[in-house]
Amino acid sequence: MEYPSILLENAVNEFSKLPGIGKKTALRLVLHLLRQKEEIGVGLGSAIIELRQNINYCKVCHNISDTDVCGLCANPSRDNTIVCVVENVKELIAVENTMQFRGLYHVLGGIISPMDGVGPADLEIDSLCNRVATGQIKEVILALSTTMEGDTTNFYIFRKLANYEVKISIIARGISIGDELEYADEVTLGRSILNRTLFNEAFKL
Amino acid sequence: MEYPSILLENAVNEFSKLPGIGKKTALRLVLHLLRQKEEIGVGLGSAIIELRQNINYCKVCHNISDTDVCGLCANPSRDNTIVCVVENVKELIAVENTMQFRGLYHVLGGIISPMDGVGPADLEIDSLCNRVATGQIKEVILALSTTMEGDTTNFYIFRKLANYEVKISIIARGISIGDELEYADEVTLGRSILNRTLFNEAFKL
Repeated sequence: MEYPSILLENAVNEFSKLPGIGKKTALRLVLHLLRQKEEIGVGLGSAIIELRQNINYCKVCHNISDTDVCGLCANPSRDNTIVCVVENVKELIAVENTMQFRGLYHVLGGIISPMDGVGPADLEIDSLCNRVATGQIKEVILALSTTMEGDTTNFYIFRKLANYEVKISIIARGISIGDELEYADEVTLGRSILNRTLFNEAFKL
Repeated sequence: MEYPSILLENAVNEFSKLPGIGKKTALRLVLHLLRQKEEIGVGLGSAIIELRQNINYCKVCHNISDTDVCGLCANPSRDNTIVCVVENVKELIAVENTMQFRGLYHVLGGIISPMDGVGPADLEIDSLCNRVATGQIKEVILALSTTMEGDTTNFYIFRKLANYEVKISIIARGISIGDELEYADEVTLGRSILNRTLFNEAFKL
């Protein structure tokens, strides 16, 4: 495709490096920015540059943070004896949004995936062990995806933490709220029967 | 949704101002940029800012351009007696990509759409009349969308140019190449019968 302007071409090329954005969508987005007030485009551009140049990671939990220690780790009202292990910041935000967890987090930065060349050494597993080794943490909740890679990572962490005095739990797997049993897959349905909970416990009666 | 960092939140908010990009996609894109090398993010950011701050429009055809007169208008090998009227730069690029047109363009900057508050005065119609008034142009091709708004704009331009000695044509409407007749709508099919072309003309025999 030939563009009438180098500036336009550059912007389209840079946009189309983003996942799920091809040349056509990139062109649509760029032309949209040109139709808006200058502040909108400049605002987006500088927000990206500032983020990329000034972002910090919490040195405790590896969450994205503007400071050395993130707001969650620094919050004294959170329970620092319980740590929820998540794959990435996206998942941390998802757990945080449930408002069901008041402990701390540990962001692995990915999951073990030999296909993508990601091994245990690429993840923040050693730093998790170090946190557990301090003896302050009583429970580690594994909240990874219920995929092959997620389970591999779960087992790896479980074995790494076996020598520490810490309770290791995993988020419940079962039928999603609102799902019809008819359409649930057998593995999930089977697991939900094996891991059944007492009625009065499930509804906190 | 609460974000762990102001920088992150800013970037997500700015991204989600783009059409078709909600908060979730914005977060996905921003976290993707954080996983890439710094150059990728900074490249995208500066390409957007540079585009938005330094973009020019051709003073002849109103195409996006890095210079006062765009490369198409300045190209002496293009036929300057024939002008193709398009809605926007996206459509100009689409026509240009067919490689079937060697004349010049005129970018309206939109189409007449009372629902969106766009009237003839908001479009580059007067400047089109001025170009035609110079007497250099022999044919104006209307290449707008085949929608109600496109047709309104077509008729408006047709009437505005009625007093000038210029041939006014419109791009052919008919069955798309590769379409099955069974699924074509009646209006298009009916129009394609009314506007039938001689077999040897259609295939340039």
